[in-house]
Amino acid sequence: MIVKMKKEATREQMIHVEEILVGKGFQVRDISGIEYGVIGVVGDTSKIDVRDVEALVGVEKVTRIQEPFKQANRVFRGEDTVIEVGDIRIGGGNFTIMAGPCSVESRDQITEVARAVNASGAQVLRGGAYKPRTSPYAFQGMELEGLELLKEARKETGMPIVTELMAPSLVEKFDEDVDIIQIGARNMQNFDLLKAVGKTRKPVLLKRGMSATIEEWLMAAEYIMAEGNPNVILCERGIRTYEKFTRNTLDLSAVLAVKKLSHLPVIVDPSHATGKRWMVKDLALAAAAVGADGLMIEVHNDPENALCDGAQSLTPEQFEDTVRGVEQILNVVGKKM
Amino acid sequence: MIVKMKKEATREQMIHVEEILVGKGFQVRDISGIEYGVIGVVGDTSKIDVRDVEALVGVEKVTRIQEPFKQANRVFRGEDTVIEVGDIRIGGGNFTIMAGPCSVESRDQITEVARAVNASGAQVLRGGAYKPRTSPYAFQGMELEGLELLKEARKETGMPIVTELMAPSLVEKFDEDVDIIQIGARNMQNFDLLKAVGKTRKPVLLKRGMSATIEEWLMAAEYIMAEGNPNVILCERGIRTYEKFTRNTLDLSAVLAVKKLSHLPVIVDPSHATGKRWMVKDLALAAAAVGADGLMIEVHNDPENALCDGAQSLTPEQFEDTVRGVEQILNVVGKKM
Amino acid sequence: MIVKMKKEATREQMIHVEEILVGKGFQVRDISGIEYGVIGVVGDTSKIDVRDVEALVGVEKVTRIQEPFKQANRVFRGEDTVIEVGDIRIGGGNFTIMAGPCSVESRDQITEVARAVNASGAQVLRGGAYKPRTSPYAFQGMELEGLELLKEARKETGMPIVTELMAPSLVEKFDEDVDIIQIGARNMQNFDLLKAVGKTRKPVLLKRGMSATIEEWLMAAEYIMAEGNPNVILCERGIRTYEKFTRNTLDLSAVLAVKKLSHLPVIVDPSHATGKRWMVKDLALAAAAVGADGLMIEVHNDPENALCDGAQSLTPEQFEDTVRGVEQILNVVGKKM
Amino acid sequence: MIVKMKKEATREQMIHVEEILVGKGFQVRDISGIEYGVIGVVGDTSKIDVRDVEALVGVEKVTRIQEPFKQANRVFRGEDTVIEVGDIRIGGGNFTIMAGPCSVESRDQITEVARAVNASGAQVLRGGAYKPRTSPYAFQGMELEGLELLKEARKETGMPIVTELMAPSLVEKFDEDVDIIQIGARNMQNFDLLKAVGKTRKPVLLKRGMSATIEEWLMAAEYIMAEGNPNVILCERGIRTYEKFTRNTLDLSAVLAVKKLSHLPVIVDPSHATGKRWMVKDLALAAAAVGADGLMIEVHNDPENALCDGAQSLTPEQFEDTVRGVEQILNVVGKKM
Repeated sequence: MIVKMKKEATREQMIHVEEILVGKGFQVRDISGIEYGVIGVVGDTSKIDVRDVEALVGVEKVTRIQEPFKQANRVFRGEDTVIEVGDIRIGGGNFTIMAGPCSVESRDQITEVARAVNASGAQVLRGGAYKPRTSPYAFQGMELEGLELLKEARKETGMPIVTELMAPSLVEKFDEDVDIIQIGARNMQNFDLLKAVGKTRKPVLLKRGMSATIEEWLMAAEYIMAEGNPNVILCERGIRTYEKFTRNTLDLSAVLAVKKLSHLPVIVDPSHATGKRWMVKDLALAAAAVGADGLMIEVHNDPENALCDGAQSLTPEQFEDTVRGVEQILNVVGKKM
Repeated sequence: MIVKMKKEATREQMIHVEEILVGKGFQVRDISGIEYGVIGVVGDTSKIDVRDVEALVGVEKVTRIQEPFKQANRVFRGEDTVIEVGDIRIGGGNFTIMAGPCSVESRDQITEVARAVNASGAQVLRGGAYKPRTSPYAFQGMELEGLELLKEARKETGMPIVTELMAPSLVEKFDEDVDIIQIGARNMQNFDLLKAVGKTRKPVLLKRGMSATIEEWLMAAEYIMAEGNPNVILCERGIRTYEKFTRNTLDLSAVLAVKKLSHLPVIVDPSHATGKRWMVKDLALAAAAVGADGLMIEVHNDPENALCDGAQSLTPEQFEDTVRGVEQILNVVGKKM
Repeated sequence: MIVKMKKEATREQMIHVEEILVGKGFQVRDISGIEYGVIGVVGDTSKIDVRDVEALVGVEKVTRIQEPFKQANRVFRGEDTVIEVGDIRIGGGNFTIMAGPCSVESRDQITEVARAVNASGAQVLRGGAYKPRTSPYAFQGMELEGLELLKEARKETGMPIVTELMAPSLVEKFDEDVDIIQIGARNMQNFDLLKAVGKTRKPVLLKRGMSATIEEWLMAAEYIMAEGNPNVILCERGIRTYEKFTRNTLDLSAVLAVKKLSHLPVIVDPSHATGKRWMVKDLALAAAAVGADGLMIEVHNDPENALCDGAQSLTPEQFEDTVRGVEQILNVVGKKM
Repeated sequence: MIVKMKKEATREQMIHVEEILVGKGFQVRDISGIEYGVIGVVGDTSKIDVRDVEALVGVEKVTRIQEPFKQANRVFRGEDTVIEVGDIRIGGGNFTIMAGPCSVESRDQITEVARAVNASGAQVLRGGAYKPRTSPYAFQGMELEGLELLKEARKETGMPIVTELMAPSLVEKFDEDVDIIQIGARNMQNFDLLKAVGKTRKPVLLKRGMSATIEEWLMAAEYIMAEGNPNVILCERGIRTYEKFTRNTLDLSAVLAVKKLSHLPVIVDPSHATGKRWMVKDLALAAAAVGADGLMIEVHNDPENALCDGAQSLTPEQFEDTVRGVEQILNVVGKKM
């Protein structure tokens, strides 16, 4: 950690800051320049908030050198984490496709889509039972009934299921019923929810928040891991930028960043990233090419009448075509599906 | 709502789209140009998701003309909403200052700060009992004990209290104990939490999400109002941009936008917006000048040793100076404190 | 174009707006809802500035339906533009790699790099003679001498050269000396420069501005084309976002957007997008997978001592490895190098 | 400057980096932690590009502590720069209003507006002769004729004139004809243009680029100053963000940041920042309250028929009202007009 003093800070103020840091167990080194006092701080600074040091009198700016996440940090665990969901292994050279409708709408719909995506090679079935919608007047999901239908579809196809959890009060229910618990982008910093899923040992699919930095995203994973649950799968789903042609801007460099900084697996959701069906296949290929550990793709048997996100859902035929393309890319990059 | 067809869309596809819209009770008008088919849709489109119409075959893009919020919309309620908290009136020409520490740390601390800000003219006491922190290793607040200390400080000073709620399970407790329930920026789209506070009649301070558009923010207010609670106070606290000199970028034009689009009161939090103590006063003056209905300001009796956000907390003396400046601005713009 | 009137606008104001629009040769359709007057405007609105219509009394908002670009618009030219540079064809199923150092530093350096990238399969040699640097104290390029060295390297290897033009006064010189004129991100809306290169018939590589929307980027292309030069190659090089882990955020969905909206070729620059050497190969593969028409990659024979952008430059060996990977991806997506 | 080595970097690599830095005249201090090697670099690092150090083998990240601007830096000049334009003094406790139409359209128009804004208290007349427009098909300004009309308006009213320069070839003409040369947001990093105006001694109004950081903005000022022209006036005009309700997002905290980091005067343009006439007055008051050194405001005698930016232009009456409000705010903050 580097502490830059103000130009007008006194020698006493700098000593005061150093004493406080030493009192907290750090070593300090004077690396002052001509214009400013600068203190280099040596020790494990991951549990200090840089902003607290910035509050000290005479301090202008504090810069962290070490990343604030520990358990999610590749520095402390060199090999890739591989997460097992039944027979499926996520991360570490495996490539996993999760597919299904935005929301569960009926027994026929979810079963039909499940069979189709399974036949094309998807390994995990997605489907929303509880839906976070911008408008209170929009369809909010089939809720518990939707969960039951997902379970039926799992029974029918043998595919594990992933679905979004929005309320801490439902954690136990989800822990029992589903195979992977999804935390949506809007709840990436809903810390109560993160702590609640951290108390289970269920794999958690943690979507990147709409405008979360990579560090904040890994800190959200750290919340889950700090409670004892190491099974976190990250999911890049586009970030909010000034460009409005797409729903969000897919940040594929984030896949590389995460793999550098962390040992956790990271998959990509091109459906939410773009909001446009006709972009999904090509970005799925790109995600496979860049080195993602999998994909999450929305598929609907009747996108025109979907109760949500029809505009970004593939038909089963388009999904089949996408998976075939992805397979070829995986051959090139040396991953297996 | 305007539906633009693809250039290659057939006449049949356009008729199909029109039929679906008519089937949903809308009137349609053909306003096609030379290159594209375009349909103007007349009727209350606030309950349709434009993205669902975009899912129809042949459709390229759908643009909403009408805002999707109803109860928060000034179109349906011309006069300003005024929210009463005890004797205090928020909105409608009144100017309300909420002040206090980032987090409650001890009886002495909260009482001392409460007395000081009260003496300077703050009407509402803020203080976090449950703290959303980026790191799981950072101080998470005194929780229930903090809530009790806030109540004591209220008793002592007579100031109503505002504090952040993070878990739906604590809504009843907060409804009983606090005067204004704060929903933090990270939870602006935690819809379960919004619905829960919507079921109370307690005033809710709704902070703008880190990268929420004004429309999404008002839709979050709509979630609360749709459950029956009309007492929503909005709080602009800076948005996330590429500029990192400040913690966030304070968007004072949002105050004007909200006042145009909605009848709800809107206050400004310059402390979180900037993260820098030395910017707070001048931006507080600017917020008063632009027409905000109040301020939320962090004040600490010992910022150097604050357990959170010391770097952005004013001392009681700095707060006093800020309030005196704000008063003079309010004289110019014709508001009263 | 859709004109939404204010709620409080009078009938007379709406008629006034309609008369003005009719006077400009448009047809108008009343598509008013219950709360607002709304006018649908039919005709070629590409030469109207929506903001001018917004200036009319009673108007609240104007939304364009038709894109404002004409010559760059795929609607008016269905087939891909293919740009010829000597024997090389850019666009239309071809894949072109442009490579070389950030800046020309010496005869040895540019010749050595040119030979290496040529041997690996690059078709065009890049190299900066005039360098836009954030700091006036940083190396500004070898200027005319650099241009001469580039020409020598062309002579030696037979590769056409692309280099950045910053001053309108040098257009003639560049038109004579180079094969492709590059317009950098910072100058994407330097309209004088765009007009100047528009007056030549030389292929122009137009980089996307740091925070340019896709529409603004295509409008910049339109500036060049409107002067008579149809030979525009677009280059996505990352956009500015809140995320600072990478230098910029590479927007691969922009490739798809451009291909949908325009017939112009679009290539990708992963070096500037990320600023990180170790990300370049994987994003190059992703760019090939998503459907880009080529790549621009920085290569240096001695990155440690490069006078600019060494941190993002590949060594010749890394470049060779990248090209071999890209080739395999091109086999999958059916493009040829 | 702080150099963080990669975890896997060898001791030799770290020594190599240290040697290179010492060879460039710096002192180095080892401030390594347990996981990483870290080097503190002491000396004037303003002329090093951090990215060049990042290119060294074994280096992970380089962080600058010292700002890279010198002449614009308040550290090297404590007192405010005051720029004189005839009798007018800009900066240092003075408040200057520049007003006029977006573009010069006719003798009558510019003269009429000039008289009106002069009567209301504007000290400088603005008006575009050369207009940067997103579309090549939009009105590009009256060019030289517009310049002549501006000079006539100056003669008539005695007000100095400010107008935008877009081409380096016109620098001499502008130096002779105008009182303040404006560099527009799109050209903030048009370094050829910056160098050209740097060679004059004419006051330069440097608008902040659409997505320029404060540091980049001050570096652009540094380009002008490094050529010998110290007369730079900065102008905040809104930045590009995800929020599209306003044309840009006005960043009033930038005024405070600039005043902290630099001694140069900084004014605010609420017209371009918002694009909405009805927001201009309130944000002008806020700009005065926050401590800006002046305003630039668009005024048109007939906004409905303005050839550009009518939607954001005030009428002379609205401008008069705005100036009267600003005066009252200036009384509060202790500035004089």
